[in-house]
Amino acid sequence: MSGVKDGATGGPNHPIVVAPTESRFWSLPDGVRLAGEPGEAAGVTYPEGFAGSGVAVGLKHSRRPDMGVLAVVPPWREGATSAAVFTRNAFAAAPIQLNRSECELGAYVAVIVNSGNANACTGRPGLSVARAMQHACAETLKVPAARVAVGSTGIIGVQLDEVFMAEGAKKAAAAVQPAGGSDFNKAMMTTDRFQKTCAMDVETSDGSVRLGVCAKGAGMISPAMATMLCVVTTDAVVSATDMQSTLQRAVERSFNRVTVDGEMSTNDSVFFMSSGASGVRLAAAGLLQFAVALESLLMRIALMMVADGEGAEKIMRLQVVGAETDRDAAAVARAIADSPLVKTAMHGGDPNWGRIISSAGAAMAGRSLPASELRLGGVKVVEGGAASEVAEGDKERMRAEMRGPEVDIWLDLGLGDSSTELFFADMGHEYVTINAEYHT
Amino acid sequence: MSGVKDGATGGPNHPIVVAPTESRFWSLPDGVRLAGEPGEAAGVTYPEGFAGSGVAVGLKHSRRPDMGVLAVVPPWREGATSAAVFTRNAFAAAPIQLNRSECELGAYVAVIVNSGNANACTGRPGLSVARAMQHACAETLKVPAARVAVGSTGIIGVQLDEVFMAEGAKKAAAAVQPAGGSDFNKAMMTTDRFQKTCAMDVETSDGSVRLGVCAKGAGMISPAMATMLCVVTTDAVVSATDMQSTLQRAVERSFNRVTVDGEMSTNDSVFFMSSGASGVRLAAAGLLQFAVALESLLMRIALMMVADGEGAEKIMRLQVVGAETDRDAAAVARAIADSPLVKTAMHGGDPNWGRIISSAGAAMAGRSLPASELRLGGVKVVEGGAASEVAEGDKERMRAEMRGPEVDIWLDLGLGDSSTELFFADMGHEYVTINAEYHT
Repeated sequence: MSGVKDGATGGPNHPIVVAPTESRFWSLPDGVRLAGEPGEAAGVTYPEGFAGSGVAVGLKHSRRPDMGVLAVVPPWREGATSAAVFTRNAFAAAPIQLNRSECELGAYVAVIVNSGNANACTGRPGLSVARAMQHACAETLKVPAARVAVGSTGIIGVQLDEVFMAEGAKKAAAAVQPAGGSDFNKAMMTTDRFQKTCAMDVETSDGSVRLGVCAKGAGMISPAMATMLCVVTTDAVVSATDMQSTLQRAVERSFNRVTVDGEMSTNDSVFFMSSGASGVRLAAAGLLQFAVALESLLMRIALMMVADGEGAEKIMRLQVVGAETDRDAAAVARAIADSPLVKTAMHGGDPNWGRIISSAGAAMAGRSLPASELRLGGVKVVEGGAASEVAEGDKERMRAEMRGPEVDIWLDLGLGDSSTELFFADMGHEYVTINAEYHT
Repeated sequence: MSGVKDGATGGPNHPIVVAPTESRFWSLPDGVRLAGEPGEAAGVTYPEGFAGSGVAVGLKHSRRPDMGVLAVVPPWREGATSAAVFTRNAFAAAPIQLNRSECELGAYVAVIVNSGNANACTGRPGLSVARAMQHACAETLKVPAARVAVGSTGIIGVQLDEVFMAEGAKKAAAAVQPAGGSDFNKAMMTTDRFQKTCAMDVETSDGSVRLGVCAKGAGMISPAMATMLCVVTTDAVVSATDMQSTLQRAVERSFNRVTVDGEMSTNDSVFFMSSGASGVRLAAAGLLQFAVALESLLMRIALMMVADGEGAEKIMRLQVVGAETDRDAAAVARAIADSPLVKTAMHGGDPNWGRIISSAGAAMAGRSLPASELRLGGVKVVEGGAASEVAEGDKERMRAEMRGPEVDIWLDLGLGDSSTELFFADMGHEYVTINAEYHT
């Protein structure tokens, strides 16, 4: 149980599901080695050339760290490159608007984050606050303002004080230190039960480079849509263009398989910074190895996010195959993964597959699925659109898998060649408790 | 608290929300009078010419009634007309398939229903079972098989015994009696906390006619999609064509405003039968008055269904206006109404409107909503896309409404002229408890 328990804060009411390193849904690519000891959560400062901080400025009532900076340190700032992916939510928060219009997204060298307040739905004053954070951080780090990106998470629609936030930003920027990755991660956490960090050594044909990551994203993953913040670092030498394309592809194949594309919160952001400190410049083959490692790194974080779903005790892998179009496959997968009836049945360890069928059928309204097949925990329960005879031994095997931490669901619509894969969490009482009481 | 509490089975953990007769979301049209005393639940047998039954054949472990028949009685069978609306779910259950292919949907005179087993995902054997129920019922009532419709609700994917079900159907058909409407309703109930029935006297320009209704549909309303069964009766003389068009319009404006079109379970069915026993033939103006009454009748039942949502303690009325297209309005409304984060916040009486904004923004991904406005409990909380200053008195008024049983949510997207209205329930611990333990 290494990895996912690093820095775990969950008590007895917060069982932590299987660690990704032990998950059958995740594996380490060739040439990649997990770095750091269990319990060490310095993720983003594992690559050379970075420093981080996390300080308490008073946004969280708990007085826990709520503002942090992660920065490329001299002498690496000049050649540093970067990339970013932001939410497409129509109510994109002020920091996202700022990043899009007043930040060099291919060359920023620091990101400042805060928790406790999302600075979303805050209009012009909110934009000023985000700008004040950016400028104060840049001034302290002695870099141009446009080379600092901003990320926020927390409550929506509450105005922040510009002077207060600028003072906090200075304090956070002044506190960066080479081993500060874990502090930085803590500063972005909200209802997270454990830290989500990971670091890797990647052997490429161009040489050895490092990757690090940390994220915030408890529970309120699609369909619930709370904020996901993620910062990824590397010391490889990669052009900004290559950074952006590898990041986009990796996000598509990791976070978008747990949050479902388009269902993004007002603040979702993935930042990717390279210090270039390894001196290893990645060319064609090396860049491909790097891209594979990055995808694996983000998938690991994505699975941690599912595992940290509020009240979650299980991870379901849902594969929908045999659809006529990618759109149909996605619609069916999402209908199943987002169904509270399916999620609660999974929580109860109940092989009530009728709810899966009903959700899939609703997503395919007006169609007929006479060649469909459903397997739950590897056991065929529907064949030719109707319930199969299931042997007693198979029933027991299915029930055993459903009591465990990882459940496989496989649905063949029997219509075509399109398919998709999605990961989702179950839904239990903790979910209601946390979310009915979050605001007050 | 008349009406909705009729036959209530909810205990102290099942608070029953405001009765539709006292709801500000429902009103009685001109010329319509609610019929029957509080506590009287004979709904569908209030119109002349009907008889109903509910018997226990052993499908429910509780030994409660689980099979029932509602029939037009002689001498009214000859001229009886009917209509029906069924689910569009791709896994439509066997009885739905049978109704579509082997039932005269404009002239059936009886409907046989069972609870405890949905006869869905049961393939060819399931179709034989539905046919056996239809034939056994028809034989006992001495009508052609094609003049009997079938409805089922309960668990999916479990085969039924044909002989057992035919015997049950005979028993249920033999038991029909003029005051049997309440027994019939009980036979279709599953996790319902109270009976859902209503009866009306409708004064039309052509004369006075009666309408009655009963339904099953606890909790698992969209996005959870469990079965809704509804039977409507009248003693007006109406052509089958007029029956079908008035029913479709009324369903569109009632059930589809709580379940959201297309999100239907494998078994959803609305049956509508006329005995013609009043002798009052409805022409143009009378038919319109009748249609208005029918819509009001079904809206009352739809609100009862929301009120009986598993764990539900509140009803939210969500109005989305200012959309560019009906499709956008519906997508935004559904994203909000289906969001577990919004539903749990409402359960906690928490004015956390950021979750409403975040859901709406996700449904409008890639767009910008600078002219949007949100009102919660009549209080403006967002204006011009940003949080408004809310006076202390208004805050208190909003909190008070959120603690109550009915909450108004009004969102103006500020883009165009399309709008929609939806009703949804909150989500609490009961929801998880009921649904994590339903199967076993």
